[in-house]
Amino acid sequence: MEDFLAAAVEAAKIAGEVAIIRFGFHKTKNVEHKGVVDLVTETDKKCEEVIFDYLRSKYPDHKFIGEETTAACGVTELTDEPTWIVDPLDGTTNFVHGQFPFVCVSIGFTIGRIPTVGVIYNPIMDELFTAIRGKGSFLNGNPTKVSTQTELVKSLLATEAGTKRDKSTLDAITNRINNLLFKVRSLRMSGSCALNLCGVACGRLDLFYEVGFGGPWDVAAGALIVSEAGGLVFDPSGKEFDITSQRVAASNSFLKDAFTEALQY
Amino acid sequence: MEDFLAAAVEAAKIAGEVAIIRFGFHKTKNVEHKGVVDLVTETDKKCEEVIFDYLRSKYPDHKFIGEETTAACGVTELTDEPTWIVDPLDGTTNFVHGQFPFVCVSIGFTIGRIPTVGVIYNPIMDELFTAIRGKGSFLNGNPTKVSTQTELVKSLLATEAGTKRDKSTLDAITNRINNLLFKVRSLRMSGSCALNLCGVACGRLDLFYEVGFGGPWDVAAGALIVSEAGGLVFDPSGKEFDITSQRVAASNSFLKDAFTEALQY
Repeated sequence: MEDFLAAAVEAAKIAGEVAIIRFGFHKTKNVEHKGVVDLVTETDKKCEEVIFDYLRSKYPDHKFIGEETTAACGVTELTDEPTWIVDPLDGTTNFVHGQFPFVCVSIGFTIGRIPTVGVIYNPIMDELFTAIRGKGSFLNGNPTKVSTQTELVKSLLATEAGTKRDKSTLDAITNRINNLLFKVRSLRMSGSCALNLCGVACGRLDLFYEVGFGGPWDVAAGALIVSEAGGLVFDPSGKEFDITSQRVAASNSFLKDAFTEALQY
Repeated sequence: MEDFLAAAVEAAKIAGEVAIIRFGFHKTKNVEHKGVVDLVTETDKKCEEVIFDYLRSKYPDHKFIGEETTAACGVTELTDEPTWIVDPLDGTTNFVHGQFPFVCVSIGFTIGRIPTVGVIYNPIMDELFTAIRGKGSFLNGNPTKVSTQTELVKSLLATEAGTKRDKSTLDAITNRINNLLFKVRSLRMSGSCALNLCGVACGRLDLFYEVGFGGPWDVAAGALIVSEAGGLVFDPSGKEFDITSQRVAASNSFLKDAFTEALQY
């Protein structure tokens, strides 16, 4: 497992470097907006390629699920085989917008569909979150823990506005936010699902939920990092978390019941 | 003006250092929640004291408006006199929550009620935003500009959930967010009004508005930093910005009309 972790860290750092260099180039060159969109797609693809190449060279028999490959080739099913689940750049909108600092590479590794290794690297803040199942969570090598907050009313909540813009989805999103704002201290939206999970894992955030994000690559690494930091990851309904369901909630163990109840307004 | 700026920068850095040390101490000591609340109040007060002491020793005849002093002694009116307007720590909730990285010291300086010098320092990210009226805006000494985005639908918007939790205020906040989400690319909430203004000033954000924030200390420095970065600061109604109104909006000049219209749903 230590080898898998070391490989994931190396791949994440290489991809982070690639992203920083390409967007740094864009920044100085002032590419037109059309150019920016192409640059984003290209950079996402390039980073996924770099990660897959690196990991495939070490583990040629493993399976790979990536955001970009899935976008290009359709659904890739999660099996019991050892599988790398990769989001080459989460929070890309932030990266394009002059490096609003919530951007990361997310690499999860499952065996028997169980998250076993998780690496999330934010190249702007140079923060590396890592976890191996049963061995705890770390931020830049130091053990990290979820918050000890016990009261919803004092809790900091994160969620995202998502990318869907139809009326029923947006109404559901804002109605839920409205309901929750009566019950929590404040709300943050960072633009990265994976980094919101890391935020819960290191106690910067007390609560996070999101419904309708992109796919398992947004949560594969983060869910392990939260649970290894002593937190809970669950479906917003309170039921068991399913990595393929595009629904996630996370908190410490003290807040879960009150949070789940608040989510069922 | 260069002297006033240098003094504000020095005061902001000292206060940032005080905050980092005190909260760092708290982090390692695991103070109880009651202790944390006291620590926040104390640290806010201590930082304001440090800033006021430093600036008063240089400019004994100037007026001072600070968040903490106002909280303790009631409303302080803005006059035509040279006046320092200080938020010793904006985004304190973030600071308490394990250093979610949007925290800053904000120091504005007005002459004849006109913002003339602005300094905003984020000690966690070590980012220093500075502006002198008529001389441009800078991030860590490099000139900074608002985004060149021209389309609302591609724009990144920031706002805040505020601290009021009565039904009519919260409904107004979430209804407005609901309406805006149909029209913009995505939404961010960082927890710091002053840093949202800096985000617009350096193109990380395209749009920002907030209604009902604490006071002029949240916007005195940031408004100047935005306008000196080529941006516009205005009332969310589209009318002229009033530093004492607790209402602010900011964008580049291309987006102002469409943004103002979208805000009047």
